[in-house]
Amino acid sequence: MSLIVQKYGGTSVGSIDRIHNVAQRIQRLILEGNQVVAVVSAMSGVTDGLIALAHSVSETPNDRELDVLMSTGEQQSIALLTMALHELGVRAVSITGAQAGICTFGSHTRGRIKSIEPSLMKKYLKEGYALICAGFQGVTEDGIIHTLGRGGSDLSAIAIAAALKADICQILTDVDGVYTCDPRVVKSAVKLNEISYDEMLEMASSGSKVMQSRSVEFAKKFGVVFEVRSSLNHNPGTIVHEEIPSMEAIAVRGVSIERNQARVTVANIPACNSSYAARILTVLAEAEINLDMIVSNVAHDGLVRQSFTMHMSDLGRAQAALKPVLKELGPETRIETEAGLGKISVVGIGMRSHTGVAATMFQALADADIKIGMISTSEIKITVTVDELVLDRAAQVVHHAFHLDEINRLL
Amino acid sequence: MSLIVQKYGGTSVGSIDRIHNVAQRIQRLILEGNQVVAVVSAMSGVTDGLIALAHSVSETPNDRELDVLMSTGEQQSIALLTMALHELGVRAVSITGAQAGICTFGSHTRGRIKSIEPSLMKKYLKEGYALICAGFQGVTEDGIIHTLGRGGSDLSAIAIAAALKADICQILTDVDGVYTCDPRVVKSAVKLNEISYDEMLEMASSGSKVMQSRSVEFAKKFGVVFEVRSSLNHNPGTIVHEEIPSMEAIAVRGVSIERNQARVTVANIPACNSSYAARILTVLAEAEINLDMIVSNVAHDGLVRQSFTMHMSDLGRAQAALKPVLKELGPETRIETEAGLGKISVVGIGMRSHTGVAATMFQALADADIKIGMISTSEIKITVTVDELVLDRAAQVVHHAFHLDEINRLL
Repeated sequence: MSLIVQKYGGTSVGSIDRIHNVAQRIQRLILEGNQVVAVVSAMSGVTDGLIALAHSVSETPNDRELDVLMSTGEQQSIALLTMALHELGVRAVSITGAQAGICTFGSHTRGRIKSIEPSLMKKYLKEGYALICAGFQGVTEDGIIHTLGRGGSDLSAIAIAAALKADICQILTDVDGVYTCDPRVVKSAVKLNEISYDEMLEMASSGSKVMQSRSVEFAKKFGVVFEVRSSLNHNPGTIVHEEIPSMEAIAVRGVSIERNQARVTVANIPACNSSYAARILTVLAEAEINLDMIVSNVAHDGLVRQSFTMHMSDLGRAQAALKPVLKELGPETRIETEAGLGKISVVGIGMRSHTGVAATMFQALADADIKIGMISTSEIKITVTVDELVLDRAAQVVHHAFHLDEINRLL
Repeated sequence: MSLIVQKYGGTSVGSIDRIHNVAQRIQRLILEGNQVVAVVSAMSGVTDGLIALAHSVSETPNDRELDVLMSTGEQQSIALLTMALHELGVRAVSITGAQAGICTFGSHTRGRIKSIEPSLMKKYLKEGYALICAGFQGVTEDGIIHTLGRGGSDLSAIAIAAALKADICQILTDVDGVYTCDPRVVKSAVKLNEISYDEMLEMASSGSKVMQSRSVEFAKKFGVVFEVRSSLNHNPGTIVHEEIPSMEAIAVRGVSIERNQARVTVANIPACNSSYAARILTVLAEAEINLDMIVSNVAHDGLVRQSFTMHMSDLGRAQAALKPVLKELGPETRIETEAGLGKISVVGIGMRSHTGVAATMFQALADADIKIGMISTSEIKITVTVDELVLDRAAQVVHHAFHLDEINRLL
């Protein structure tokens, strides 16, 4: 008998029919002899509806109260899913974040999990119940309700799996697993059977939308093996786990892309101004702009060019934030911007032991006549910017160059 | 500075506009120098909507899960009302049933309050916050959510007032207070300035819809003085408190009526069958039929007639429940039924010291040519059944006979 923690997102429980469908999936696992803990999001649309309601009362609704309001969405879906299980004759109880013992800290609307006290869940499991837990929520030590922000239900599921020492945590979603690239862009993209935490993290941070980084980080920290799989069929998904030596046989695990990128360059900074980097980054951080690639170089005239990529929607705010400090940085300093960029990354822990990955990537792009803009690298990732108009083609040629359509055959 | 606990029902917070209106009422009390704890129901219609949702998943939704689902209604309204107070610049926080420390026991969907641990509420009050508490809900010692059934928010308010030793508990509703009779029936009905717990209880049990009996009982038990008043204006309402000697000056405090009554009579029971009453009452209790008046008499032939009143909608179930036991009771025993009845009661603690109350009531009805059916009396109440078609006129003549339109002038 395995203890399986599953997470169902808002789309999976988005209608009464879908709730019945999820109930059947859970029943199937139980009939196969497993214990099941299902972590559930709010029905799709419900959270947005509650936020709209809050905004109809107040232009700037208080975050503490938003948490009280939003957390009702998951509370409703756990009750309904539990009722649907009863209809099938399955013994099941709903469990709120507070009842799951999920203790949180940090800011409202983006709480963080401090600890889990799973004694009530263990009691019900021992009594033979399936547990239907509210994702996305917990309470502080004082019992004040916290929501966990975007991707919070994934985090709840992984944390509960860790606390209950589950055999596996399944993240049920609308895709079959993690692919070598987005299959809508690269038709020959292949579903990966497995991927390491670190690769999953780099995929997430470079545009793969399957999961938020922090859930993967949490799983890595507590050694929770999880599987990303579809809630629409019963195909095996992608297992995410600690890296094992055999995984290094593959240089590149996947290709991820991100659209709507912009570049901001602060040009002509005198190199003698040693604090320029700190000043620029502080200003942008205060404006709450998420920078991604950061590249700096000294030109032949001794002046520094520092460039960043960011989401296009942040471009205006970044320019406004930088303007007041240009003079401080140097009399000739100016801002250059470029919108309409895309980012393409190759990710793989095998890069550490394989040489020539960057060369293969750049040659493939050159052969397709695609110009590379900025370049940045980490130990297991190489990222370049290209014109957004050729991003899909860039993904196709790079995917092909690394034989990723054959990856599962190679293993 | 007074500590005022207020309860606002679902109609009072039934729309965004009304929520803003309630926020203004609370702000007004705070500006007058009071501390305020407002206990709030779900927005009108929300609870019914949630119950309908549950029934779309399951024909017989589980009560534990219904509680989880329904309690979200109040949780939403407290968040929204708190946001509305913030818009007015009032420091306020929302408090769920669990956070209010309302510890419950008993059945789901009709939980009972065991105790209140108000330390979190006291902490927030000390910090100068107005508290917006979810009515109708609490949690068991295990943290399992309970709702308190019909009138549960009134009960929450009175229990919180008791726990916080509030100066007054105001039950805000859509009527101005407790009237000598329903003003829609008796135009000259007068709002009472005060009424004793016992009178309020008898009024509630005999058809006055202002409050549920158990909230009044709870208030009596813990000595919570409360006021029933309108949420639509600022008029003083009716204060409900322990009886004081001066209240006995009035024989009758009010007249209450109840429609849609039916009578069931089990006739021709041999008087030698000593267990008949227990047998009949057990059968009806098992069918979950609420009996009201119970009258029994022995006819000249030595056969017993036992009659009950009940709500008309229970009549069919009562007949079905009694049928199988008729033979047990005696060979000649049969059931007679009469629908289309109304009940009229006069209530007053002054009855204990005033004689002739029944005579005055019956004479008034006789003068109006209204026939009396069953009669039952308690220490402070006399109830009779009449044809429902003449119920309103019966109320008018009895109200007039006791000079109730002048009651406040007499005090």
